[in-house]
Amino acid sequence: MKLEQQLDHLFNPGSVALIGASSNLAKWGFHILSLLIAKGGRQVYPVNRNGDEIQGLKAYQNVSLVPGTVDLAVITVPFIDVPAAMEDCARKGVKAAVVISGGFAETGGDGARIQREVTEIARKAGIRFVGPNCMGHFDTSADFFTVPYLPPVSKGPLALISQSGNTSQSIVYLACELGLGFSKYVSSGNEADLHFEDFLEYLAQDDETKIILGYIEGLKEGRRFFKLAREITRKKPIVIMKAGRTEAGARAARSHTASLAGSDVVCEAAFKQAGVIRVEEVNELIDVTLVLLGQPLPRGRRVGVLSSGGGAAVITADVLMKQHLELPRLSPVTMDKLNSLLPPRWSHVNPVETGGDPFSYPCLWALMEDENIDAAFIIGGGGVNASYAKWVSLPDSVSGQIDQYLEEAEASELNDVGKSLELMKKYHKPIIFANTGIPTPRKGKVYEKLEKKYIVPFPTPERAAKALAHLVQYSEYLRT
Amino acid sequence: MKLEQQLDHLFNPGSVALIGASSNLAKWGFHILSLLIAKGGRQVYPVNRNGDEIQGLKAYQNVSLVPGTVDLAVITVPFIDVPAAMEDCARKGVKAAVVISGGFAETGGDGARIQREVTEIARKAGIRFVGPNCMGHFDTSADFFTVPYLPPVSKGPLALISQSGNTSQSIVYLACELGLGFSKYVSSGNEADLHFEDFLEYLAQDDETKIILGYIEGLKEGRRFFKLAREITRKKPIVIMKAGRTEAGARAARSHTASLAGSDVVCEAAFKQAGVIRVEEVNELIDVTLVLLGQPLPRGRRVGVLSSGGGAAVITADVLMKQHLELPRLSPVTMDKLNSLLPPRWSHVNPVETGGDPFSYPCLWALMEDENIDAAFIIGGGGVNASYAKWVSLPDSVSGQIDQYLEEAEASELNDVGKSLELMKKYHKPIIFANTGIPTPRKGKVYEKLEKKYIVPFPTPERAAKALAHLVQYSEYLRT
Repeated sequence: MKLEQQLDHLFNPGSVALIGASSNLAKWGFHILSLLIAKGGRQVYPVNRNGDEIQGLKAYQNVSLVPGTVDLAVITVPFIDVPAAMEDCARKGVKAAVVISGGFAETGGDGARIQREVTEIARKAGIRFVGPNCMGHFDTSADFFTVPYLPPVSKGPLALISQSGNTSQSIVYLACELGLGFSKYVSSGNEADLHFEDFLEYLAQDDETKIILGYIEGLKEGRRFFKLAREITRKKPIVIMKAGRTEAGARAARSHTASLAGSDVVCEAAFKQAGVIRVEEVNELIDVTLVLLGQPLPRGRRVGVLSSGGGAAVITADVLMKQHLELPRLSPVTMDKLNSLLPPRWSHVNPVETGGDPFSYPCLWALMEDENIDAAFIIGGGGVNASYAKWVSLPDSVSGQIDQYLEEAEASELNDVGKSLELMKKYHKPIIFANTGIPTPRKGKVYEKLEKKYIVPFPTPERAAKALAHLVQYSEYLRT
Repeated sequence: MKLEQQLDHLFNPGSVALIGASSNLAKWGFHILSLLIAKGGRQVYPVNRNGDEIQGLKAYQNVSLVPGTVDLAVITVPFIDVPAAMEDCARKGVKAAVVISGGFAETGGDGARIQREVTEIARKAGIRFVGPNCMGHFDTSADFFTVPYLPPVSKGPLALISQSGNTSQSIVYLACELGLGFSKYVSSGNEADLHFEDFLEYLAQDDETKIILGYIEGLKEGRRFFKLAREITRKKPIVIMKAGRTEAGARAARSHTASLAGSDVVCEAAFKQAGVIRVEEVNELIDVTLVLLGQPLPRGRRVGVLSSGGGAAVITADVLMKQHLELPRLSPVTMDKLNSLLPPRWSHVNPVETGGDPFSYPCLWALMEDENIDAAFIIGGGGVNASYAKWVSLPDSVSGQIDQYLEEAEASELNDVGKSLELMKKYHKPIIFANTGIPTPRKGKVYEKLEKKYIVPFPTPERAAKALAHLVQYSEYLRT
């Protein structure tokens, strides 16, 4: 059977057996069963030594006693019992499995031996399996989930392969918070059988997946990874967080998923050569995803900055330079435009500091139209003018005026945002909004309109600059 | 008059004139007047060309027409009118002033000349003033505020001197969000008369100020700054965010507050020599403040890490190494303790990974008691076990059990936290809680207990590691 078909059984099985189904709230076997029942849509067979009824379903003492066919087995029994469970699966003709249980190669000694044993049994029977020592997987199109410990996930363009369950929780959580959806997800664990590279190959062909995200501690098939990546990144971006960069990190990786982290310098160079976007932090991974989804690929690294605050302008200039982006001179035409738009005290340099006046869209448009500029960067309250938090306490007599003012400002900003997005498309220039540490209130029509287009103000200029720098580098890679 | 007395007039004046008082909602002169009236407690005199009644108060056409004495003048009129306003202040015998108005040296040309003129007038009259081109100041003890554009501030141990108004907004906002309070605040602007160094000297003597925070673009009196800092940092920490590090940043600084940023390498070395804690980001400044307030000064840089997730353990090891912290071997006694506390699959190295079991306090205590360890670092859900977000959706039949479980867990964790804080004191070892990107829910009795002691889980291991590294360096500085 081809890999693609094999993985189809994993992501969209007709029937599932849960080996280790439990009525004990503290067990994975409890929560996975609840989830399978709640989702519905396919045959679910609880398997449990006792063979009692569990959560209203008849349980079987052994998977081979299940009456119908079993496409997928999810295994949560203690590691010592996994070889027997896999033997049962082989006898039953199960097609794929997810081994959640931990205690295998990551612990060395006996665990490593038992992992080899389980893998051998599965290979002989032609069963492909995820794990062991993993957290499950999901496919939103098939509405199939074996991982209970995630926030509710919606359909969307992201796929995630993660060698860490808990890190994937953070990634999924942060993505969901911003309204980003997923196509497929797999927590790959120790990768005794199915490797990161198998999922990568599968997701490359998956039309619903537009961006592939990964958390890696070590690669089982480095050459294959980079060969695949070189082809895939021409079509869809791959964003990887690779941990175990340091000696202490690599040591921790060995005891986590039995991964060999390898030389980080070699890894870094290989990622670069294959067009893989490498990030260092979970937040950075989400930030890059946002700009990949929401922004055009810029044609260069020259950034025009617009700030309504002086300190923010200075800080932003520093962080852009640190990311090897450029702040070019503005063209004479742009200078003329800004002179007519801003009070005389404006900065007269890039970063354009308005001199305390609120950010205004015509200034942004002037930057967008400047041939010296490849991307616009608005720092401090921009993009959410109308919905921005107001701390000013006002006498009652005028609070009515403020409401009306804010309403008018919102309507006008909605209009201005529309025009800005047109210019973004027309000129292929990203528009990055960033705030100065204060989180942008996630409400109001302007925020909603932008969020739908994956344009979300970054909480700090540092995070925004990093995301933009990744986008610029990816764009440069694609042009070579 | 000595500097201290002069600044007392600024921070706690008996009477205030607002030159530029306005009934126009769009003007600073409107909001500052509202604020002065709302706070009450001192004579407030609106001054305005028209001399009409404003917000229910009689306004004067000129500060010299005010009947009583005027300790402090707050000036918001256009820059071109500031020299005349300062002349009036001189005639009236005003003791101190805050010049909010912008358009001075930061714009070059005429503005620079007028700034010199204003400064000359004030010097001759013995008036010390803040600004121009600033956002005001406050003193929470005196309950006196001239800055309307900040969230409500409570009394507390922090003082902030900022050369940028908008950056100070972010700093104050983030501090307030975490329940941190302030003693004094000043937005120092162009520093035509009163310099950053004057405020630093004043705050060094201020008993209510325990930590001095600063945002700097350029120092007017570098030598004086470093001489003062060397003395002050022995008694109270100074945390500085210095911007204008890069060429583009320095250019932006010139047009913002007319600051000369100077060589960043020289600056960095001088900060280090004076024991000043230098940060790069606004969030980092707040993070350092938290550990300075909440944690003991560690005796070394050897960190013991406790993680309930494998990926988090690997990432944390990486980020601690990146911050030049150490992850030593655990002592045989600690290994024995952990073997008895954890399932056999635990990592058996530092970072201590529990093997998927929830974080448990006895493991933390084992680390705290280890003579190889100077600080404990808990990553992923620690410190807030009981109030941690639960994504698991449960059948109705068992949801009652969960509530009871969570209640008991909270009571037990409160107890465990108490013991942990005792060990922290006993051994002088910081306890750092960090999360993996997912923000910790800021609720529950455990969170509240810890927040009151300034112990707040950091949102990422990166931020936590940086904060701890600063604390370690400051501690090392004080021991030399």
